Amino acid sequence: MAPLIVVAGIGNGSGTGAATARLFAKAGYNVALIARGSDHLTKFRDELKSGGANATDFPIKDYSVQSLSSAFASIKSTYPNSPLRVALWNAGSAVWKPFLEITPEEVQNITDTNVVGAFAFSREVLQVLTTQEVEAAAEGGLAGDRQKKGTLLFTGATASIRGNTTTSAFSAAKHALRALSQSLAKEFAKQNIHVAHAIIDGGILTAQSRNKDNAEWVANVNVRLDPNSIAAAYEYLVKQDSSSWTWELDLRPAHEKW
Amino acid sequence: MAPLIVVAGIGNGSGTGAATARLFAKAGYNVALIARGSDHLTKFRDELKSGGANATDFPIKDYSVQSLSSAFASIKSTYPNSPLRVALWNAGSAVWKPFLEITPEEVQNITDTNVVGAFAFSREVLQVLTTQEVEAAAEGGLAGDRQKKGTLLFTGATASIRGNTTTSAFSAAKHALRALSQSLAKEFAKQNIHVAHAIIDGGILTAQSRNKDNAEWVANVNVRLDPNSIAAAYEYLVKQDSSSWTWELDLRPAHEKW
Amino acid sequence: MAPLIVVAGIGNGSGTGAATARLFAKAGYNVALIARGSDHLTKFRDELKSGGANATDFPIKDYSVQSLSSAFASIKSTYPNSPLRVALWNAGSAVWKPFLEITPEEVQNITDTNVVGAFAFSREVLQVLTTQEVEAAAEGGLAGDRQKKGTLLFTGATASIRGNTTTSAFSAAKHALRALSQSLAKEFAKQNIHVAHAIIDGGILTAQSRNKDNAEWVANVNVRLDPNSIAAAYEYLVKQDSSSWTWELDLRPAHEKW
Amino acid sequence: MAPLIVVAGIGNGSGTGAATARLFAKAGYNVALIARGSDHLTKFRDELKSGGANATDFPIKDYSVQSLSSAFASIKSTYPNSPLRVALWNAGSAVWKPFLEITPEEVQNITDTNVVGAFAFSREVLQVLTTQEVEAAAEGGLAGDRQKKGTLLFTGATASIRGNTTTSAFSAAKHALRALSQSLAKEFAKQNIHVAHAIIDGGILTAQSRNKDNAEWVANVNVRLDPNSIAAAYEYLVKQDSSSWTWELDLRPAHEKW
Repeated sequence: MAPLIVVAGIGNGSGTGAATARLFAKAGYNVALIARGSDHLTKFRDELKSGGANATDFPIKDYSVQSLSSAFASIKSTYPNSPLRVALWNAGSAVWKPFLEITPEEVQNITDTNVVGAFAFSREVLQVLTTQEVEAAAEGGLAGDRQKKGTLLFTGATASIRGNTTTSAFSAAKHALRALSQSLAKEFAKQNIHVAHAIIDGGILTAQSRNKDNAEWVANVNVRLDPNSIAAAYEYLVKQDSSSWTWELDLRPAHEKW
Repeated sequence: MAPLIVVAGIGNGSGTGAATARLFAKAGYNVALIARGSDHLTKFRDELKSGGANATDFPIKDYSVQSLSSAFASIKSTYPNSPLRVALWNAGSAVWKPFLEITPEEVQNITDTNVVGAFAFSREVLQVLTTQEVEAAAEGGLAGDRQKKGTLLFTGATASIRGNTTTSAFSAAKHALRALSQSLAKEFAKQNIHVAHAIIDGGILTAQSRNKDNAEWVANVNVRLDPNSIAAAYEYLVKQDSSSWTWELDLRPAHEKW
Repeated sequence: MAPLIVVAGIGNGSGTGAATARLFAKAGYNVALIARGSDHLTKFRDELKSGGANATDFPIKDYSVQSLSSAFASIKSTYPNSPLRVALWNAGSAVWKPFLEITPEEVQNITDTNVVGAFAFSREVLQVLTTQEVEAAAEGGLAGDRQKKGTLLFTGATASIRGNTTTSAFSAAKHALRALSQSLAKEFAKQNIHVAHAIIDGGILTAQSRNKDNAEWVANVNVRLDPNSIAAAYEYLVKQDSSSWTWELDLRPAHEKW
Repeated sequence: MAPLIVVAGIGNGSGTGAATARLFAKAGYNVALIARGSDHLTKFRDELKSGGANATDFPIKDYSVQSLSSAFASIKSTYPNSPLRVALWNAGSAVWKPFLEITPEEVQNITDTNVVGAFAFSREVLQVLTTQEVEAAAEGGLAGDRQKKGTLLFTGATASIRGNTTTSAFSAAKHALRALSQSLAKEFAKQNIHVAHAIIDGGILTAQSRNKDNAEWVANVNVRLDPNSIAAAYEYLVKQDSSSWTWELDLRPAHEKW
């Protein structure tokens, strides 16, 4: 039975979540897509399906415990026999503003989405992974003796390791996510569940960033992150055998100043 | 006019927040105490007052934006002419449990109290500090040319810098608080507002920890943190002149393994 | 023309350096091996050659500037047309002892080998890489538009990020190496030279560790690092395109406590 | 009997080492000064003596094991009954250059001075401290029940925690020093010896920096570190009781960007 990947956070179908879904779809995974808003989501699901993938969209109105619980119930009934092997938390809101201009509502919203939402997503994923067996060779090329039940991936950012003048709310949420990922990595590794965190330290090439007046930036592989390269990092992490797991790596364009 | 200290988080009047309030009260500060629950709070206020301090309690039912906003309005009308010079965020909840045993309600609660609450407290404090002048010599012994509008202090923990097997929720909240403190330190330093974060890396001697069967631990200065010593650290931070500000320091008992 | 990999630090031919040499030899790289002592080195070179690789050994008596300079001169004359694409610093001494038992000679030796030696190696490597063009597609499967002149890899350890009771000398050297790698990563990235650092956080399965009375440990993929898996991490780093470079990642067995 | 402070690294008598010596001299400590070159050293010793201090200079030609061993022998015979309570490593060389412009001699020199030298200094200090009793109240105001044999302080820098484009050699040495300080802090705390590390993150006001065309910078307390404020930080660290020791703190001017 083909393995399953669940991706939360698809944006407009041109960023990290989408590139990861595409890459694993091509590798034969069933793909469950979770996102707020359904237009981009439906379109992206159709793109995957027209490429031959077994992909389903699970639109939610928010990243609340209830919404995610209900989405995972649907995923399980859609893919009852497909073992969950990869889950990517790529969702979240961002806000860059001087501290006193950030409203209490924005603080509550970013905290609920990026932190409470990530906890709820992780809970759903780990309730499944802890009850699974390690991968069987029959599932596909990634298994063998890798001794893995599954991989839970988190997309971080520069703000995950550094607060700055306009990132109080965003970096608080990203630091929290990093702590969650480290805690889960330590707690669930002994159950052969791999948890990893990627610090994306630079601008990502997406449909939005392409559409600006920046043809030079778009064309120069040295200055912006290609979502497909981030997806390749996730694929590498998923492929790691249990002798050598990475919790955290950073990713940045060659010419990025840091 | 005597300067004002605001302390959020008093516990049962025997820990870090209380020791800090006591120390600054003795140095002549007016003291505004914010805490949930009013029994311990009233008792502690009375203790300060009987020692000659000008102390007032501001009980709140939770660390919501509304409650803190209302508490600060009361503080301002109680101490209209006392410049706010020190604010300590020492509040928060903790939970140590395996991840799958932490309920969604506990996640929401710890996030709301420790993160959203800290943002709300910081907002109230910084709205005051940014509109003040730097300390005048007349205020007391700490002023002179220190070029400081005020100091905002945050109490952190081991979990502020390391997630671990039973700390997913607590360390997420404490990481978020650390990011907030770093962001604020960077943003408001140029306005001569000092923001600092203390990593408390060990057990603190409080009324609760005293009451256990651990006389040896209580008696041994090398194995537990004395709240008065933490308060002394906060006093040192408040006294730093603008040439040499500390954002972060760690505090642990001499014999603590780390 | 086949690309060249230079590996410094081969041990007894069963660890990280050897596994990396083997993996890149199999991928068609010419292999230059630098190590102290020549018995294991010769034997390992012969192993690579009997597998069809173009491998040469460059024994040195120490990691002094003179020895490394002379080794690189020999490498250049042995492989005059093979572009240097990968260099791995895997050399160094270790000492785990209480501080007052470490002799001044041991401090000098570990500093000279692990720090001064790493600077000398990096100098030789970067003098070559900075004068090269980015990879051409003709070189092999890894090139295309990756926009890379070469990759300089450093093997780190737990001690790279944490000093501890018996690691004063070793962790000082490993911290220094990490700082070197970060400085070089920042300085040379804009010249399309990729510098990366791997934190190896656990015991590695080598000929020595196999020969102990620990068959269970050897057999359990979850508890020790397989040098081939570390080599796979290095291969992944080398393959990263310039849009998404990693400076640092950690690698540890799934069941390692950290 | 008055306690003893040993300071290594006096520069021209206007920086951190000198300010620390001055502050502890004023508090009644005997002062042993170690430095390379004797002109500034003699002059600074005379300044302390004319202020009433019991100060002696111990000039050395380098920070080699031999030189430091000999200096400490002289210190012991000069102050046979004065318990060593504070030792400050403030010595070292710096070099800021692109990596390929740093000569192998500069690398060897900075490593020998900043790393091997710091190990040798620490060895001398800890050989004394480990054989002492904890402070007695009779020694002076800092003792009582603080349960401390002595404090070993290290002056760090921004480069202690971050490598950068022109700091490969300097940051390698400073990272090594930080690792040494952390290892020693962990190893010797249980013997009631306190080891601490200060990250000085900004420019310091010294005779040299005063003499430049920068009256505005000199006059503005917000933009440069006052050595007396750094010394005050060291005094605070020395005063900490064993319930609450700090390993590391950062110090920077209020308006420093970081």
